[in-house]
Amino acid sequence: MTNNNVLIFDTTLRDGEQSPGATMTHSEKLEIAELLDEMGVDIIEAGFPIASEGDFNAVSDIAKRAENATICGLARANYKDIDRCWEAVQHAKSPRIHTFIGTSELHRAIPNLTMDEMAERIHDTVTHARNLCDNVQWSPMDATRTEWDYLCRVVEIAIKAGASTINIPDTVGYTAPIESADLIRRLIATVPGADEVIFATHCHNDLGMATANSLAAVEGGARQIECTINGLGERAGNTALEEVVMALKVRGDIMPYTTKIDTTKIMNISRRVATVSGFAVQFNKAIVGKNAFAHESGIHQDGMLKNKETFEIMRPEDVGLAGTSLPLGKHSGRAALRAKLEELGLDLADNQLKELFVRFKDLADRKKEVFDDDILALVHQNAGAEDKLKLVSLRVTCGTDGPQTADMTLEIDGTAQSTTATGDGPVDATFNAVKALFAHGARLQLYQVSAVTEGTDAQATVSVRMEEDGRITTGQSADTDTVVASAKAYINALNRLMVRREHSEPGYDTKGVSYKDAT
Amino acid sequence: MTNNNVLIFDTTLRDGEQSPGATMTHSEKLEIAELLDEMGVDIIEAGFPIASEGDFNAVSDIAKRAENATICGLARANYKDIDRCWEAVQHAKSPRIHTFIGTSELHRAIPNLTMDEMAERIHDTVTHARNLCDNVQWSPMDATRTEWDYLCRVVEIAIKAGASTINIPDTVGYTAPIESADLIRRLIATVPGADEVIFATHCHNDLGMATANSLAAVEGGARQIECTINGLGERAGNTALEEVVMALKVRGDIMPYTTKIDTTKIMNISRRVATVSGFAVQFNKAIVGKNAFAHESGIHQDGMLKNKETFEIMRPEDVGLAGTSLPLGKHSGRAALRAKLEELGLDLADNQLKELFVRFKDLADRKKEVFDDDILALVHQNAGAEDKLKLVSLRVTCGTDGPQTADMTLEIDGTAQSTTATGDGPVDATFNAVKALFAHGARLQLYQVSAVTEGTDAQATVSVRMEEDGRITTGQSADTDTVVASAKAYINALNRLMVRREHSEPGYDTKGVSYKDAT
Repeated sequence: MTNNNVLIFDTTLRDGEQSPGATMTHSEKLEIAELLDEMGVDIIEAGFPIASEGDFNAVSDIAKRAENATICGLARANYKDIDRCWEAVQHAKSPRIHTFIGTSELHRAIPNLTMDEMAERIHDTVTHARNLCDNVQWSPMDATRTEWDYLCRVVEIAIKAGASTINIPDTVGYTAPIESADLIRRLIATVPGADEVIFATHCHNDLGMATANSLAAVEGGARQIECTINGLGERAGNTALEEVVMALKVRGDIMPYTTKIDTTKIMNISRRVATVSGFAVQFNKAIVGKNAFAHESGIHQDGMLKNKETFEIMRPEDVGLAGTSLPLGKHSGRAALRAKLEELGLDLADNQLKELFVRFKDLADRKKEVFDDDILALVHQNAGAEDKLKLVSLRVTCGTDGPQTADMTLEIDGTAQSTTATGDGPVDATFNAVKALFAHGARLQLYQVSAVTEGTDAQATVSVRMEEDGRITTGQSADTDTVVASAKAYINALNRLMVRREHSEPGYDTKGVSYKDAT
Repeated sequence: MTNNNVLIFDTTLRDGEQSPGATMTHSEKLEIAELLDEMGVDIIEAGFPIASEGDFNAVSDIAKRAENATICGLARANYKDIDRCWEAVQHAKSPRIHTFIGTSELHRAIPNLTMDEMAERIHDTVTHARNLCDNVQWSPMDATRTEWDYLCRVVEIAIKAGASTINIPDTVGYTAPIESADLIRRLIATVPGADEVIFATHCHNDLGMATANSLAAVEGGARQIECTINGLGERAGNTALEEVVMALKVRGDIMPYTTKIDTTKIMNISRRVATVSGFAVQFNKAIVGKNAFAHESGIHQDGMLKNKETFEIMRPEDVGLAGTSLPLGKHSGRAALRAKLEELGLDLADNQLKELFVRFKDLADRKKEVFDDDILALVHQNAGAEDKLKLVSLRVTCGTDGPQTADMTLEIDGTAQSTTATGDGPVDATFNAVKALFAHGARLQLYQVSAVTEGTDAQATVSVRMEEDGRITTGQSADTDTVVASAKAYINALNRLMVRREHSEPGYDTKGVSYKDAT
């Protein structure tokens, strides 16, 4: 069954979203799924349907909308999880059930199963999944720390029960490349029926080797790589999609494998995942960091001789970094905006374009040059038509001699209410004003500002992360006034929190579910 | 000559500092060098002495102060570079000259040398370096793209001329682990005299594999890893010191090699390099990201069962992440502050402690809980005794309805001057006020805010990067008022720029030197 095509299985919406603080809203999940589908991801793991109504609805809606990708949901090794997963993914043109159980000694102790009992459980649950769905993936969690003989035994059981993909996770990010290649190679050589299924690799980056481990697994015979955009994920994250895909593209000479990914879509989706997750990408991140192509970008080139051939192994265009196109300004018309949007790979409906143009002109009046990143920030700003809280006006006074005060008017359920609050700094005063007008118990976990473009008139993007009773939400906003952007981001996060309250979503979505509860 | 000890060669101050925008001041370089020395780095590459007076002085001062580490300077393949390098490093207890030339076809074309001419140049320059200094390292730049026979030939020449370390750089971050191990293994097996020198690996992270490539090179026989803190460096950066060191520590079972690094010092130096370079570390960065130990830190633990044995391969204490020690508050006395500083591994003189305590009390008055990170920010704040510009007072009014105004008083060379300026947002108004009081042509390249600790009364750290005539400087400041922190960071950057102007430092320090000018 081996050929040279490597399937890309993206788990940004499941394993990535599971990282503390990276929770995404329903509409953000749909948007990211659409971008993943468009870029050619083979399988999208869209969530963990049993975990919450929110997760179920996200998987279900993504399944209904996906054009090309197989849509996969996660399920523990029990019938209830698997049934619920099928309920969500069944709407997809190509559905997949992914069921797993921890097979190492440490993990077998959690549900307190003997080797034999667990083997039987695996047989029963994979068979059950296979009766519902043609396409079943099975994973022995903590495979890299599972006894070799037992690993072979359970993999064989899963294959015989009908799993068509066997995923070998390095759950704790412990493996080195030589081991990773060797493990897959030995499994394929040893387990009866292994040549009729696809082996997958799922690596974590705790020791900084997830990319190399994934590629080594491919050399060992794996033909599916599980990964996330920007390497999002718990702790040090998962394998970064952009790294494995570009490494295969650049080093086809020694790794003659292909993927179906349209690499020119990498930068756009990387930016969107960074924004909606609130996990910024560091400047020196491979492929998608601001400096990754620093010798080509607007950042000053240093004095060294650097012709392309000498120092460049990838072209910025390959990952969708636009060339030196001219920025827009206040004299730019709607046609110019539309052309720019097309150049950025964004396709807006006429009414959306009209609304965006109004906000574009407003920004262009305040800012000399409107850069690509400004446009992206505008497009992705929350229009917020149905929000409970809306900022009407804000006036803040701050500085070295205190007190810092904020005069604020908020519209709460359509009624304008005003207050004046003080605080330690302009942002604290602003947040205190919101609290005075709308009491809440949410705790601010993170506050982050970054300038979207260069210059002192840059739009600042503010991200805030809030937590209430285990629910975590992030809010974002962009404005040329940092304080105003902070107020809007804070209000945005509160609005999201209220949506989640109303839907009675449990805390932590997928994180509310214990792996222990596997029956 | 092979044994199981791997030398750690840190080039944060040379290759790291060379990345666009990461320029450090003289005092920052000395501080980082001291931390590297204390943590057990074997060789510190402190700079490129010929590049500028600033680089020369940094290497020279670091050489004079280093207690244990070998201090190395970079030199191109010409006598003038080598002489200047020796002038700087000769003060060290253990000095090293590192000279290099690009040996691939593309790089040979730059100085327009034939293979024979370059071979002769290598012989002459290494011999010259060896006549000055016992400890000479030689690197064939772009080694991974150099013809095999020629690479063997020039490595042999360098060894015969007296180089005791041969470094094999993957200049463009192109290699995969199997190649990396194989290249070193074949060189050692092929080149006469190879068993009497130490082979080193120098990897870049363009494809996300620098860590795995470095470790593979060790398996191939290399016994020196070149790396930087946080993987700082051009484009996607260099190998991250913290990743290779922790991987060797955690996976001693399959990689039986040791380093002399005191890993408990990793977090502190990582934070300092992030601050002085302005290159923040992403949450999901291996080892040093905020989330790397998220199951242990204050960030909410999710509902999954996660006992230490099941999911933890490293302990936070191993990298110097303090446990759950109590935060300080306004009632904490000087003894508590001193105890906390000791816990954080900081050793202050009595007068420094006295000055810090005043600022600590001031902060504690404004903030309920003072966390470890708050203390670190306080300690590292620029005292700024001899600065040309000082902020006396600032009052900013901003909000949704404009105009944003800033009333500012600055002390310029000891004379107070005031103005009122408007701008697009509070930060723009503030920066305009500075410009009105002190005209300058520097361009803002980057503006970045991050909260040091949690809560709305968090201290915000603002970083700004400015550029003037090719000189790039960064400024930082922390304050509970973002706008005040922005003003101070901006003024801090301007003060640094003026220091550099006075010393007539050329643009880009090391980046002002062309590799072409190799004679």
